[in-house]
Amino acid sequence: MTALAAARLGVPVRVLADRETGTGLPFSGVTIADWEDPVVLRDWAAGCDAVTVESEWAPADRLLAVAPDVRLRPGAATLTTVRHKGRQRRAFAEAGLPQPEHVLAATRDEARAAVERFGTAVLKQFEGSYDGYGNATCRSERDVDAAWDDLAAEDGLLVESFVAFEAEAAVTVARRADGEAVVYPAVRSEHRDHRLHAATVPAGFSDATEQTARRVALDTLAALDATGVATVELFVTGTGEVLINEVAPRPHNTAHLTIDAHHTSQFENHARAVLGLPLGDSGLRVPAACMVNVLGQREGAASPDLDDALRVPGASVHLYGKATVRPQRKMGHVTVTAADVDTARERAEAAAAAVRL
Amino acid sequence: MTALAAARLGVPVRVLADRETGTGLPFSGVTIADWEDPVVLRDWAAGCDAVTVESEWAPADRLLAVAPDVRLRPGAATLTTVRHKGRQRRAFAEAGLPQPEHVLAATRDEARAAVERFGTAVLKQFEGSYDGYGNATCRSERDVDAAWDDLAAEDGLLVESFVAFEAEAAVTVARRADGEAVVYPAVRSEHRDHRLHAATVPAGFSDATEQTARRVALDTLAALDATGVATVELFVTGTGEVLINEVAPRPHNTAHLTIDAHHTSQFENHARAVLGLPLGDSGLRVPAACMVNVLGQREGAASPDLDDALRVPGASVHLYGKATVRPQRKMGHVTVTAADVDTARERAEAAAAAVRL
Repeated sequence: MTALAAARLGVPVRVLADRETGTGLPFSGVTIADWEDPVVLRDWAAGCDAVTVESEWAPADRLLAVAPDVRLRPGAATLTTVRHKGRQRRAFAEAGLPQPEHVLAATRDEARAAVERFGTAVLKQFEGSYDGYGNATCRSERDVDAAWDDLAAEDGLLVESFVAFEAEAAVTVARRADGEAVVYPAVRSEHRDHRLHAATVPAGFSDATEQTARRVALDTLAALDATGVATVELFVTGTGEVLINEVAPRPHNTAHLTIDAHHTSQFENHARAVLGLPLGDSGLRVPAACMVNVLGQREGAASPDLDDALRVPGASVHLYGKATVRPQRKMGHVTVTAADVDTARERAEAAAAAVRL
Repeated sequence: MTALAAARLGVPVRVLADRETGTGLPFSGVTIADWEDPVVLRDWAAGCDAVTVESEWAPADRLLAVAPDVRLRPGAATLTTVRHKGRQRRAFAEAGLPQPEHVLAATRDEARAAVERFGTAVLKQFEGSYDGYGNATCRSERDVDAAWDDLAAEDGLLVESFVAFEAEAAVTVARRADGEAVVYPAVRSEHRDHRLHAATVPAGFSDATEQTARRVALDTLAALDATGVATVELFVTGTGEVLINEVAPRPHNTAHLTIDAHHTSQFENHARAVLGLPLGDSGLRVPAACMVNVLGQREGAASPDLDDALRVPGASVHLYGKATVRPQRKMGHVTVTAADVDTARERAEAAAAAVRL
């Protein structure tokens, strides 16, 4: 979707992937190769003005050794910090940003002590945990021992005090290398089975919470010196406190609704930020919108039937062209724009459920 | 832009072109070949569910001989009628649609007599005239003689009474093969040097004129049995009369602003109509918008600088990726959305002028 946005600005795009992704990527200029190979990286990057990533795990920072002149955005330091949940927490603490109480536990005993202190805690792998993988909720020594054996790396793991949040929010920011930034309105996000299910905007928080969430997101990107778009996922507590859950230094699922609902999509602003172009208006151009993910329900070749989904008023259907469907695989999303969030939400659920794959 | 819209719906697209178009077409699956060759057409179309055209001059109707099962949309009859201005006028007359007085002149004498009757007339080639090419404004026998020698084909040429219009309008309709259709709000269009310069919406006509324009457009597509989107260009006279100028049976420059200003773009509705999917909402999602074309000013390799254009509030810049620039070549367009048409128009002019190529 970033490539589509860049193409609209007349910017030639090339893509490097380490394997066939299974998406019907409609772009020419796709290279499938071992992206850890310095020769592959150097040859691929030759002639690029700027390079960005679709995932913080793409080894783009290896480019610096072989193509030192390329503008890598986000930069290597941002990627390095974000990939490790301990380094993330340390960076946020140094910047005085609000986050859950936590301990970087180097030993099992430190983890036990932290869980005893927090009562309920979430133990997380420093690297590679996402969507509920690599996490364990612990309340006792026995829980900790099992989780430690499962999750701890050489440098230990992260122990976070469990946050009994009232809501989850996500704020996306587009930020240029010179620090100029625009912030999108907060989105209310809802997870099911540890995966994003729906995102709704306006989020319906108090003005104070909305402003705090935006401020925290801007400060988070500044702390990481992130370039491009990044999304800060936040816990909102019953008292309106805002705590950083985690950060994705790239276009994010919670901001897919910006394609249909905002003046400038996250993808266009990512392209603009990466290229050092002026950033576009991040405001809503409709009263309300809701995005619901379209997940696979079965195993087999995809044969989409959009007839019922497209009949839902205000529905915009986005499929990613994946040739095969698997249970829980993200196959696309639906955004519905409407006069109010309740209507948008109801219609988005109906439209997403009506997509047959 | 149609291919981008189809890709978003997860629809695999392939493209056949008869030559390198000079656009940085970012799609894979582009075949450059002699599209009048039946073998080329047959092989290319194998496996396609539906075929559409970007230009009414693409010889897609030749497909019917070699791939009779393909859904060609618009169909061969629509293309055949639209390609010949005489057949167009005859079809509109048979359907009782409002159009300028005209004569299909088979001989020079018939053309002279028509010009004498109309006072001022425009002589047009039946085939291939566009953007001021193949046309001549005539007031005298001498004018007619020169124009006849220049323009007349074996079956003569079209003589139209000159319409002293107050405004030009364009109405785009998306229509499915079963006749279901949605109509976009009328756009006020403005030409310079016989080429589209700007399109603005809402058009600001009286309610009666707006409704008449939409009705005429819907009836025009029905008369042509057109499938997909088509744009009807209209003259609006000082008395509010609406007369059909001409028809383009495909996505049209006057409706490019639907990408940024309407709930469903003309390109997505073209894809939906061609594929027999439900049509999307053709209404505005912003109060006002204006599109201004970006034309080349010089000869050479294009090296776009969008910095100033992207700073204009509400500006969305679309470049077509053409590698070389020539004076008057359409290189892209800018759409500005705003709270009112005057602001949109002013900013769109400024943004288009600020695109440096």
